[in-house]
Amino acid sequence: MYDCMIKVAINGYGTIGKRVADAVAAQKDMKVIGVSKTRPNAEAFVAKQRGFPLYIADISKKEAFEKAGLKVAGSVEDMCKAADVIVDATPGKIGATNKALYEKLGKKALWQGGEEHELAGFSFNSSCNYKDAIGRQFVRVVSCNTTGLCRIINEIDKEYGVNHVHAIMVRRGSDPGEIKKGPIDAIVLDPVSVPSHHGPDVLSVLPHISITTMAMIVPTTMMHMHAIQMTTKKPVTKERVIELINKHPRLGLIKKTAGLKSTAELKEFAMDLGRQRSDLWENCIFEDSIYANKNELCFFQAIHQEADVVVENVDAIRAMIGGEKDAAKSVAATNAALNFKTIQNNH
Amino acid sequence: MYDCMIKVAINGYGTIGKRVADAVAAQKDMKVIGVSKTRPNAEAFVAKQRGFPLYIADISKKEAFEKAGLKVAGSVEDMCKAADVIVDATPGKIGATNKALYEKLGKKALWQGGEEHELAGFSFNSSCNYKDAIGRQFVRVVSCNTTGLCRIINEIDKEYGVNHVHAIMVRRGSDPGEIKKGPIDAIVLDPVSVPSHHGPDVLSVLPHISITTMAMIVPTTMMHMHAIQMTTKKPVTKERVIELINKHPRLGLIKKTAGLKSTAELKEFAMDLGRQRSDLWENCIFEDSIYANKNELCFFQAIHQEADVVVENVDAIRAMIGGEKDAAKSVAATNAALNFKTIQNNH
Amino acid sequence: MYDCMIKVAINGYGTIGKRVADAVAAQKDMKVIGVSKTRPNAEAFVAKQRGFPLYIADISKKEAFEKAGLKVAGSVEDMCKAADVIVDATPGKIGATNKALYEKLGKKALWQGGEEHELAGFSFNSSCNYKDAIGRQFVRVVSCNTTGLCRIINEIDKEYGVNHVHAIMVRRGSDPGEIKKGPIDAIVLDPVSVPSHHGPDVLSVLPHISITTMAMIVPTTMMHMHAIQMTTKKPVTKERVIELINKHPRLGLIKKTAGLKSTAELKEFAMDLGRQRSDLWENCIFEDSIYANKNELCFFQAIHQEADVVVENVDAIRAMIGGEKDAAKSVAATNAALNFKTIQNNH
Amino acid sequence: MYDCMIKVAINGYGTIGKRVADAVAAQKDMKVIGVSKTRPNAEAFVAKQRGFPLYIADISKKEAFEKAGLKVAGSVEDMCKAADVIVDATPGKIGATNKALYEKLGKKALWQGGEEHELAGFSFNSSCNYKDAIGRQFVRVVSCNTTGLCRIINEIDKEYGVNHVHAIMVRRGSDPGEIKKGPIDAIVLDPVSVPSHHGPDVLSVLPHISITTMAMIVPTTMMHMHAIQMTTKKPVTKERVIELINKHPRLGLIKKTAGLKSTAELKEFAMDLGRQRSDLWENCIFEDSIYANKNELCFFQAIHQEADVVVENVDAIRAMIGGEKDAAKSVAATNAALNFKTIQNNH
Ligand SMILES: NC(=O)c1ccc[n+]([C@@H]2O[C@H](COP(=O)([O-])OP(=O)(O)OC[C@H]3O[C@@H](n4cnc5c(N)ncnc54)[C@H](O)[C@@H]3O)[C@@H](O)[C@H]2O)c1
Ligand SMILES: NC(=O)c1ccc[n+]([C@@H]2O[C@H](COP(=O)([O-])OP(=O)(O)OC[C@H]3O[C@@H](n4cnc5c(N)ncnc54)[C@H](O)[C@@H]3O)[C@@H](O)[C@H]2O)c1
Ligand SMILES: NC(=O)c1ccc[n+]([C@@H]2O[C@H](COP(=O)([O-])OP(=O)(O)OC[C@H]3O[C@@H](n4cnc5c(N)ncnc54)[C@H](O)[C@@H]3O)[C@@H](O)[C@H]2O)c1
Ligand SMILES: NC(=O)c1ccc[n+]([C@@H]2O[C@H](COP(=O)([O-])OP(=O)(O)OC[C@H]3O[C@@H](n4cnc5c(N)ncnc54)[C@H](O)[C@@H]3O)[C@@H](O)[C@H]2O)c1
Repeated sequence: MYDCMIKVAINGYGTIGKRVADAVAAQKDMKVIGVSKTRPNAEAFVAKQRGFPLYIADISKKEAFEKAGLKVAGSVEDMCKAADVIVDATPGKIGATNKALYEKLGKKALWQGGEEHELAGFSFNSSCNYKDAIGRQFVRVVSCNTTGLCRIINEIDKEYGVNHVHAIMVRRGSDPGEIKKGPIDAIVLDPVSVPSHHGPDVLSVLPHISITTMAMIVPTTMMHMHAIQMTTKKPVTKERVIELINKHPRLGLIKKTAGLKSTAELKEFAMDLGRQRSDLWENCIFEDSIYANKNELCFFQAIHQEADVVVENVDAIRAMIGGEKDAAKSVAATNAALNFKTIQNNH
Repeated sequence: MYDCMIKVAINGYGTIGKRVADAVAAQKDMKVIGVSKTRPNAEAFVAKQRGFPLYIADISKKEAFEKAGLKVAGSVEDMCKAADVIVDATPGKIGATNKALYEKLGKKALWQGGEEHELAGFSFNSSCNYKDAIGRQFVRVVSCNTTGLCRIINEIDKEYGVNHVHAIMVRRGSDPGEIKKGPIDAIVLDPVSVPSHHGPDVLSVLPHISITTMAMIVPTTMMHMHAIQMTTKKPVTKERVIELINKHPRLGLIKKTAGLKSTAELKEFAMDLGRQRSDLWENCIFEDSIYANKNELCFFQAIHQEADVVVENVDAIRAMIGGEKDAAKSVAATNAALNFKTIQNNH
Repeated sequence: MYDCMIKVAINGYGTIGKRVADAVAAQKDMKVIGVSKTRPNAEAFVAKQRGFPLYIADISKKEAFEKAGLKVAGSVEDMCKAADVIVDATPGKIGATNKALYEKLGKKALWQGGEEHELAGFSFNSSCNYKDAIGRQFVRVVSCNTTGLCRIINEIDKEYGVNHVHAIMVRRGSDPGEIKKGPIDAIVLDPVSVPSHHGPDVLSVLPHISITTMAMIVPTTMMHMHAIQMTTKKPVTKERVIELINKHPRLGLIKKTAGLKSTAELKEFAMDLGRQRSDLWENCIFEDSIYANKNELCFFQAIHQEADVVVENVDAIRAMIGGEKDAAKSVAATNAALNFKTIQNNH
Repeated sequence: MYDCMIKVAINGYGTIGKRVADAVAAQKDMKVIGVSKTRPNAEAFVAKQRGFPLYIADISKKEAFEKAGLKVAGSVEDMCKAADVIVDATPGKIGATNKALYEKLGKKALWQGGEEHELAGFSFNSSCNYKDAIGRQFVRVVSCNTTGLCRIINEIDKEYGVNHVHAIMVRRGSDPGEIKKGPIDAIVLDPVSVPSHHGPDVLSVLPHISITTMAMIVPTTMMHMHAIQMTTKKPVTKERVIELINKHPRLGLIKKTAGLKSTAELKEFAMDLGRQRSDLWENCIFEDSIYANKNELCFFQAIHQEADVVVENVDAIRAMIGGEKDAAKSVAATNAALNFKTIQNNH
């Protein structure tokens, strides 16, 4: 029923925020009561098209918005007051500055991976620690890369026991709609030092895992690519790994028959299949790359940086509000509302 | 009614073919009776998802398709026999080799801009010469760049009289899903010589226009960008040019308020608006770039290479079959079926 | 003789500064008495290898430099005091903040194209207005694009009389060694509005020219590409245009026999020929693109953004000091010291 | 003395061939007696500038070369007859077709990494197996990636004993002067399957090493980047690894003080230092990335695909001719003639 719907505000209607808004709006138990923007640009017109009330960070800019034909519903504070939970999707490090407001209003809030673990005190991944998020006031949904790592590491760990993970993140330089960031023709070590922050970040969700990560940035906008090696306690087989992937609601398998061997072809496939915004919410593990040799498991997985955390945000909201105690049920509800079946079911 | 629907076959279910198939399937007076593929890859699974019967160029590969779980309906010849009109969207120069088949079967067929004008003997653009296509057996829909040029040149010419056009085409190196073609870090003159083939190609539709074109390729996948200067017989005003654009069903205006200044932001906007495959079927003319100084008119227009010809293909089918004699009505029907209103109506 | 050598300081040892330093050091009548850096990075080690005394903008960072093994000769003010003329090659808009220092010390100084014309009150191009720079205290060497435009427009204007120029600048997104700036996959209008600043900037050197410019940025690091159309008072012939290019010491002709059709191949050729840093100091006009039809002239020219202004800086120094009154002689001296013969002499 | 110089022919004067030619020409004990081209393009003019006699694969094209002003010295067979040893640097898989010619003429020949190990029956790396190449008729210099892997793995193995290597190769899409190959905006798994061919290829030089490799292609032209993890028999320390690198004539160390964190900045540094063609013949290991934790060693190394094998080719020639039995002396002679000291000596 309408009355018992969770009232969600999206603070920061950008790359992540606009996706979470649409995902929330699609859920049966949630609704978007407002989204916030700083400037009257194209994304503001998208909010208008969707019918999301538009709030603005700096109310003195109201006139500029209205001149552009965009109705302003109020300030960010107004929006937060009206919400049960706030999804903070402002740019990295900005989110932290909003905590005082959420505390003052006594509101539940969740941040994205651009913020530090300490800000929320709890780092979330639906497949790993949904239960621990139930009822919390503050949650941080880990970054796209960490989300992708946690999902698969946890699955392999439960089955075989993970001794050590060596993961290389080859990251996209910017999102497709971003025009200022490079590089144009370079491979950039980010950071140069080893391990990158991704390893420690995995530990914020799965503290017992031994992992060394290395990360770089390359001139592409499409997706990240992970080259992963895990050494395991028990011997691994390719067949069983495929089974584990197929049983998991957010582990995708790119089957050999599809003939896909790149992020670009994969995004094109998602687009052709009619996924909203061509979003790939699942890890995209290449079947043909899965290499199991005794206690060594290697594979490639592509991670759609803009998408995988979106479904996690929805589950996090549900856990925080406490209406659904069962992780699997929340995940199933989230996926169903988005018509999301992992990609192996489409080829 | 079902019986009087135009039966359309898509020979070559690739970048253009898959879009034309979806556009045809959306029309009230047409249906897709089959699409053809050469290899069992991801796009074949898309055809399967859409429910389009799958025909194959080389019937000896039937087993390979069926092994991959793809049902084969027959050979390309079988498909053509069952059709009223064939949209040939095979790669450039391959289309020509299919003409004998279409002639043998006595079928109507239309090709894309990768083929020579002479193959069909008639080059088509809905806004310029729909009438002349009525009842024809063979038609060639001009290329994405030529389509974009014809639409706007014709409009300016009707209003002001065009003395001369100087158009520079800055072209995308490959389509987003293509991974083999470059360049990676270069501006490539294609061709080095002036004029490029685009000028003469415009003359295949608008023979009386004086035009010099220059073309290059750059490392992007998103859209082409045209930098256009026209000198006119009568003085031009910016306001009137905007009016002309707004009245035309396939001339888009990127308003200054949207704050968009690149192809990437524009594609993101189209994606956010929910356009299927983020397709921009219209010319995307940047309002802020329109510069009118006496008899000189300059502006930038972005052309979505994969999309603008799609709607032209639909109109061409209608003209060839002869059911609709009025260009404006066909264009309106095509657009309406796709829920396509030019982008200025969304911001 | 040593004593009469012009003492040149390079304030800002970056992309342009390091090239000007090497070009100055190669001249018979000049020497580099110091270069300045803000941070102890790789370029500082290059200055050390060259034996250029290293001065620093912020003397409090002296220790950081010396820890890295880099000897600091003093502050930027110390360096300026010791110089006859300062080449300011700090980033755009920073140069302006240094004017007070140069005035206080009563030193001659020249800035780059990132600064406004008004800062120096005089905009320089060796081929167009060397004479007017003689004895000046302050000069601005126009930007790489404007330099490339002025050289060829002036030549065509002297021969045929230019009625109007329509020039499109397809610009590199970042220099090859720059990793932060994009775009990665987009064509960015910069600016969206027409004309771009390049047209007015040409007028700072050639005030009588009628010109409309349009500019965009693409994902490449190599060179800018200009697509130029000029309408002329007298009819043009391709042969004569080639003659004019061949006679000019800084207009390069990429002959058809070389088979080059891109910026990447051109830079590779310059590298193979042994040009220092693969620098192309000349305009690179593609022979095969020269199209002359009555009073219309079109062609493509590639402009190496990092290089073409370097030789202009050297001439500007000579003019300002006043030792050489004849532009042609200065240009010849500059070129000879760099072993620079236009590229058509190498193929 | 002139008479006892090794007469070297370069069959295939392209990316690798032109570099090997210059490196050979710089040696005291070798000279280039000819280079071969298939088409009269820019690289042919470079050969002319260098004074290398130009031979052509298809003698019927002689006229085309001479029309372009390029003197033809004869056929490839003529060139091979005059040589003591032929460096075959034709494109991958073409080299194999030349073996019959070399056998017929009874000439020594060496191929590049684009050919199979079996073609030559011996795969070469100066640091690993120089001795075994002495006197051989046929040798294959392993690819750029394999060369980079062998150099460092062998060094670590000698010191610590290598248990297993996990190496990820993030490869450049095309060389800088190449304009046809992509991808433009994608990460391409090449191959999708694990292990890539690089692991087995290392075994052709170091047969006792256990190694799993994974490889992908990204849109850059600059260099490859390797992310490497080795587990060792004895515990590793960072200090000792740095010592090993510093003592090796072809292992470069990018010191932290240089502030370089990308391939682009590294190439810029090599260019600024005056390296011919900005070539980095050494492995470029990032000091700050070296991570040693008990028996685990991780680091990043950038490999200049066009350059590292060049010096190996020179050594291979010397070994095959048999004049120098000592690997270290050959390496020292090769390096000295090129003025090549590893990059840590420049910062
Ligand atoms: N883009 C990704 O790939 C990605 C993936 C996972 C997580 N994240 C994380 O998600 C968060 C958001 O990133 P994004 O990529 O969506 O950023 P974005 O820049 O695309 O969007 C941020 C939005 O916040 C708005 N904003 C800026 N300052 C604001 C303020 N003070 N108050 C309210 N709104 C403000 C901006 O207008 C913009 O609409 C970051 O923490 C980021 O690290 C991003
Ligand atoms: N991609 C564009 O930007 C664009 C824009 C406008 C026009 N066009 C033109 O459209 C035509 C198609 O181009 P595209 O980009 O869609 O190509 P594409 O390569 O994406 O698709 C071509 C399809 O044809 C199939 N095919 C190949 N050979 C075949 C054969 N012998 N019989 C049947 N099918 C065969 C392929 O499997 C593929 O599915 C060309 O003429 C092209 O010039 C392309
Ligand atoms: N890069 C080009 O393509 C290009 C072409 C033509 C003209 N220009 C113009 O040349 C100028 C320099 O550009 P660039 O590309 O060489 O920049 P850059 O960033 O490569 O180099 C600038 C240098 O100045 C130093 N610097 C910064 N602040 C300083 C300060 N306060 N005092 C002293 N040094 C300081 C930096 O350390 C750096 O070494 C700008 O005006 C630019 O517009 C650049
Ligand atoms: N480019 C690299 O990064 C790289 C690195 C290491 C090894 N290699 C290997 O080196 C070899 C050469 O590669 P490349 O990149 O220099 O290629 P390339 O295409 O740059 O050059 C090949 C040259 O051979 C000439 N050629 C072609 N066919 C010929 C024939 N039949 N007879 C004589 N000459 C002919 C071409 O004209 C061209 O000049 C390949 O085996 C490649 O795998 C390349």
